[in-house]
Amino acid sequence: MERATLATWKERVEHELDRVVAFWTKYSHDSEHGGFFTCLTREGQVYDDLKYVWLQGRQVWMYCRLYRKVQRFHWPEILDAAKAGGEFLIRHARVAPPAKKCAFVLTRDGRPAKVQRTIFSECFYTMAMDELWKATGDPRYQREAVEMMDQIIYWVRVDPTGLGQPQLSGAPKVDSMAVPMMVLNLVDQLGQDDDKMFRKYAQLGEWCSEQILKHLQRDGQLVLENVSKDGTEIPGCLGRQQNPGHALEASWFLLRYAIRQRNPELKTHIIEKFMLQPFHSGWDNENGGIFYFQDADKFCPTQLEWDMKLWWPHSEAMIAFLMGYSETKDPNLLNLFCQVAEYTFERFPDMEHGEWYGYLNREGKVALSFKGGPFKGCFHVPRCLYMCEELLKALLLAS
Amino acid sequence: MERATLATWKERVEHELDRVVAFWTKYSHDSEHGGFFTCLTREGQVYDDLKYVWLQGRQVWMYCRLYRKVQRFHWPEILDAAKAGGEFLIRHARVAPPAKKCAFVLTRDGRPAKVQRTIFSECFYTMAMDELWKATGDPRYQREAVEMMDQIIYWVRVDPTGLGQPQLSGAPKVDSMAVPMMVLNLVDQLGQDDDKMFRKYAQLGEWCSEQILKHLQRDGQLVLENVSKDGTEIPGCLGRQQNPGHALEASWFLLRYAIRQRNPELKTHIIEKFMLQPFHSGWDNENGGIFYFQDADKFCPTQLEWDMKLWWPHSEAMIAFLMGYSETKDPNLLNLFCQVAEYTFERFPDMEHGEWYGYLNREGKVALSFKGGPFKGCFHVPRCLYMCEELLKALLLAS
Repeated sequence: MERATLATWKERVEHELDRVVAFWTKYSHDSEHGGFFTCLTREGQVYDDLKYVWLQGRQVWMYCRLYRKVQRFHWPEILDAAKAGGEFLIRHARVAPPAKKCAFVLTRDGRPAKVQRTIFSECFYTMAMDELWKATGDPRYQREAVEMMDQIIYWVRVDPTGLGQPQLSGAPKVDSMAVPMMVLNLVDQLGQDDDKMFRKYAQLGEWCSEQILKHLQRDGQLVLENVSKDGTEIPGCLGRQQNPGHALEASWFLLRYAIRQRNPELKTHIIEKFMLQPFHSGWDNENGGIFYFQDADKFCPTQLEWDMKLWWPHSEAMIAFLMGYSETKDPNLLNLFCQVAEYTFERFPDMEHGEWYGYLNREGKVALSFKGGPFKGCFHVPRCLYMCEELLKALLLAS
Repeated sequence: MERATLATWKERVEHELDRVVAFWTKYSHDSEHGGFFTCLTREGQVYDDLKYVWLQGRQVWMYCRLYRKVQRFHWPEILDAAKAGGEFLIRHARVAPPAKKCAFVLTRDGRPAKVQRTIFSECFYTMAMDELWKATGDPRYQREAVEMMDQIIYWVRVDPTGLGQPQLSGAPKVDSMAVPMMVLNLVDQLGQDDDKMFRKYAQLGEWCSEQILKHLQRDGQLVLENVSKDGTEIPGCLGRQQNPGHALEASWFLLRYAIRQRNPELKTHIIEKFMLQPFHSGWDNENGGIFYFQDADKFCPTQLEWDMKLWWPHSEAMIAFLMGYSETKDPNLLNLFCQVAEYTFERFPDMEHGEWYGYLNREGKVALSFKGGPFKGCFHVPRCLYMCEELLKALLLAS
């Protein structure tokens, strides 16, 4: 019975991954400047040629990962597009080289249009370079990855001044869960298939895990996105903000960490607190789907999009539950995977033109019809499908 | 027949204004620090005590205006609350006095929490101070208003460096319609009931009007929010962005300007191009209500909230159509006023707890239940009701 479920889903995600990759390889490559168009309509038409650095880095990473790990995507054209994207980033991502600060958006030909005072552009740059190194063996990419990683670590753990955030007496000193999550993801990336790097960043991984766990608040009842430096709740909307999809994403980052650490108590803790609790409070019992934002005291969130159903919390939930099931064989986790996957496969994929819609309204109807935009590129959907395919394959082999 | 319509609406807006003012006077005053709580739940409970400078300035302005112009609000407690709000702004709004740059958000006790690199906090500061001067006769408030106005003019027309916007080679040099709109609104404010000020800012008013008219693009077919410095369309989503409620707000700012200039051709032009065209393309024929964002080429906007129905575009449309009707006696404009007002009065006011909901979904259902938030305070609703009441009174007197 479980085996049949696993086999059915393996086939569905495999087939869906093919359709998704076909969409991006067909419509997103900028053969003139390198890099990718990510503002694509439902049909794949480019409606804006700006290049968001997060999305450029993510697509390079995704292409290299598929090339490297999935036999049927071991295509020269995928690696070539990834290399062209990587070279575009090396040439243009930094705002004022040799300083490492990267832009948030570039023009099509690579001039900086906007800069964010955070670490995320740099993190996706690092992810891209490291996977490019692993796919090509070219040490230039590894050097790029490691040097940027060192800069990120310096900003996060030593001195954030270089990011340019203003110091204001009324601004609360806040730790956002996104930062250690992102860094833990990089620790995982750089240490993959590389023992030396794994050891180099082991202590950093431990720090990240502790920092993320700090966001479990109110006697372990809920995960808050923002907490004080000393790990206590901060007042107001900012302190009460919950993002269930983000907690679910954190759960599988942490679960991978716990697996590497061979720490069964941590696994159990994470599944309970970062997977099951956020899912149960974040699931819309009336319409199905995972809310985008919630308030820990049940006030109405101030984000206008709070009740929308976005593609990525559902992709992250699929990965989380399937990974949780792989580790525990708890059938409840497989049921939850199926619940989310059924909701997701019914509403997000566009059967006519390929890829997924990104933004549904509360009732699950498509609210924004484009396939790619400033925050949606070739990443969460194929990463989810690729990871689920790998997990399902391994489960079927072992069963 | 028209007279009966006008009389009915006069009664409705008058009664609604009473209910709205009652909500804010009951729940929003911070008697400890001065200023106002604006993050208020449906029932009036404070869910965050941050003080957004735009909303502080707007509420001071609104209170003084009601005190000064509407006999039944000539209450000492309204003026006292306005003065306490004004003093709070004088003490705390500037980030690093004597420099004039103001914060965007302050803590409850007035410490800066966020700064925007735009002129808007300073504009609402100026509006508040000028109306406070007119309501109290205290020249200290006038000095505050004029000095801040001079700073704004310097930033807008001479050198924006002090705002701190980064110079990036790929960032398009964009003129946003919001800037000349806001400055024209201040020109109107400072020149009201003051001939000397009216003459002082006459040339600036002309410049603002020209700058706003520059946003009429594509052979006069539509209004774009952002254009190049030389008045041409810019590529991409930014260039194609439309905000029909904002164009409607601009229409009545411009109409007041054309009235003062005794320029009938300009009046006709504005009603056609900034009122009727944006309304007809921005109205949702299926569900009613005015969309928040649109794309000039009918691409799906990238703003997640693009199809939501917000309170303020509807308030601004009510003012615009009623003012247009006052000036022209064109029954079509009265019909449009009634169309928008019926939609609005049916859905936005909360008959149980007072004030209006701010955010409906595409279908017109309440999507966010709070009455005040980071961008909704005591301003658009009472300004609309007060202005409509005045316009309806004058129309009834003249008929």
